[in-house]
Amino acid sequence: MNRPEPDKPESDKLGSSVTMRDVAKAAGVSVATVSHVVNNKPGARIGDDARRRVQEAVAALGYRPNALAKTLSRGGSRFIGLVADAIATTPFAGQIIHGAQDEAWAHGYVLLVANTDGNEAAENEAIAMMLEHQVQGILYSTWYHREIVVPELLHQTDTVLVDCFAENSGLPAVVPDEEQGGRTATEALLAAGHRRIAFINTTSPSPAQSGRLAGYRSALETAGIDFDESLVFPAEPAQEGGYATAPRIVESKATAVFCHNDRVAMGLYDGLREHGLSIPGDVAVMGFDNQDVIAAHLRPPLSTVALPHYDLGAAGVRVLLGLKTASTHEQLMRVTCPSVPRQSI
Amino acid sequence: MNRPEPDKPESDKLGSSVTMRDVAKAAGVSVATVSHVVNNKPGARIGDDARRRVQEAVAALGYRPNALAKTLSRGGSRFIGLVADAIATTPFAGQIIHGAQDEAWAHGYVLLVANTDGNEAAENEAIAMMLEHQVQGILYSTWYHREIVVPELLHQTDTVLVDCFAENSGLPAVVPDEEQGGRTATEALLAAGHRRIAFINTTSPSPAQSGRLAGYRSALETAGIDFDESLVFPAEPAQEGGYATAPRIVESKATAVFCHNDRVAMGLYDGLREHGLSIPGDVAVMGFDNQDVIAAHLRPPLSTVALPHYDLGAAGVRVLLGLKTASTHEQLMRVTCPSVPRQSI
Repeated sequence: MNRPEPDKPESDKLGSSVTMRDVAKAAGVSVATVSHVVNNKPGARIGDDARRRVQEAVAALGYRPNALAKTLSRGGSRFIGLVADAIATTPFAGQIIHGAQDEAWAHGYVLLVANTDGNEAAENEAIAMMLEHQVQGILYSTWYHREIVVPELLHQTDTVLVDCFAENSGLPAVVPDEEQGGRTATEALLAAGHRRIAFINTTSPSPAQSGRLAGYRSALETAGIDFDESLVFPAEPAQEGGYATAPRIVESKATAVFCHNDRVAMGLYDGLREHGLSIPGDVAVMGFDNQDVIAAHLRPPLSTVALPHYDLGAAGVRVLLGLKTASTHEQLMRVTCPSVPRQSI
Repeated sequence: MNRPEPDKPESDKLGSSVTMRDVAKAAGVSVATVSHVVNNKPGARIGDDARRRVQEAVAALGYRPNALAKTLSRGGSRFIGLVADAIATTPFAGQIIHGAQDEAWAHGYVLLVANTDGNEAAENEAIAMMLEHQVQGILYSTWYHREIVVPELLHQTDTVLVDCFAENSGLPAVVPDEEQGGRTATEALLAAGHRRIAFINTTSPSPAQSGRLAGYRSALETAGIDFDESLVFPAEPAQEGGYATAPRIVESKATAVFCHNDRVAMGLYDGLREHGLSIPGDVAVMGFDNQDVIAAHLRPPLSTVALPHYDLGAAGVRVLLGLKTASTHEQLMRVTCPSVPRQSI
């Protein structure tokens, strides 16, 4: 018999926990029926046959209804913690939670989510709470890709950084592939025949700033176009920045613009319109992020590159459970940013 | 001595659970230090004095490091469940989680969050998982205000509906006050001197559709203006709907428009601009929702009414813990939608 290695917790744990769902499946009834029978709810009308099948499945599978008692008897919990700085103030981080949750559930784990707004005290409390609940490990996530200082408490459990990283921390990190994303965005404009392509980049130093620029350069160079620094325009990464940059885009005679994000593109739309220019007829526009309430609903709908938030969350859980390893030499896993073509090119 | 009533679980439970945070406070050290001492981590450099103070606080408060063991010994958990249909695909529901989490933490509870995308099987699994973890109760929340059919399993624990309701279910519900919101929006336009105010309403039957219309009518009537059905324009509740309605707004000679939501207002902005009309000079525009990435960033920034998502989540927890009761005769608690003035009026 091949026993699982002690450092591969998922294989050991997966077999040892039977859920209501398993019982329902084995008995051929709904989860609600199992719950009624197991908890002996008065008033529920469960047929004798269904009741018997549930009881048989409970016995056969060794189901124990109290998840906490199960956890204690096993000496480890089926919780995974997710500490996020701002699930609430951005439509993005929600998708990280969604991906992490789906992946956790697929492996029989439950996600404990804490939103800390980046407040250090709240963060420490959240992590302490998770440690008290004996989580299997913690995903620590930020709402935009950046380098972080690792909270000390995180070293007391297995931790995976999601959408952030900490060099020399030894912690694995799952981040979007900013350079590939910038390259993909620029390639979409090149493929439509554009040669004079401007880039409105953010003024905030970040992996997105440097990565997307590197991707833009690399795509141009591959296409045999010299990089022209005068076509890179720094701007506030919001609608206001895109709008303010419009006059310089017009002056530059660029026929296409790669915007640092969709919000910049939205502002640029307004600015170009005020100059009497149409999109994509006069100027093609490419965004970044695929932001839900914006990208698909601009006039014309915005071609963009998606930040893979769902995949970041899911990959984070897989790394935590040892189902996937980050690149060994730098502990960094880069997730592809896919192209989302619409009508602005 | 006044013993708490058995049907007031929060008073009974609050005193009985000591957390790391309590120990840290009593010992005058950080949560990290408590964790180090309690878990006897090797390698942590904790001074003898701090170590002693932590140990004394642990003894004095009766702190037990294993939250699960504590829960079992008490026969009830410190979890509150939150089942949401779509935290991931809307920037809204995130604020419900945020409010629920803050309020749960304030009372010593931890929030178990499940996003089900409205899928019935996922929903039943999530609820079953929460029942297995012996949650104190469940908040069941939808990302937009609507009537729901209550999942059968929810009747096995205390449940509060958040941003949704189910008539005759006997379940308390916390919802936004749509009628007050519609009245507040219309009053803002009236206060700026407008008398001919159009309303672009959604085509989807919903409490928002009927409530905001009722608020619009009531504000007009209070101001002595007859309700004019021809000034109510049904439209898809998205940018596309607002844009498509612009020609009819122009024909109507309305000097102000109350839009069903911010996305409609965003589309209307584009449409009015194409007619050469300026906002607010030619037409004043009022939104609804205060949607994060849109409202503040339109040109001009959009005056709107906020959906109180954070407050809905927080109020839901308070109702669940018995700290607040919904109106007795209909079990419905309506939360105010506040005005957010910007520059579009």
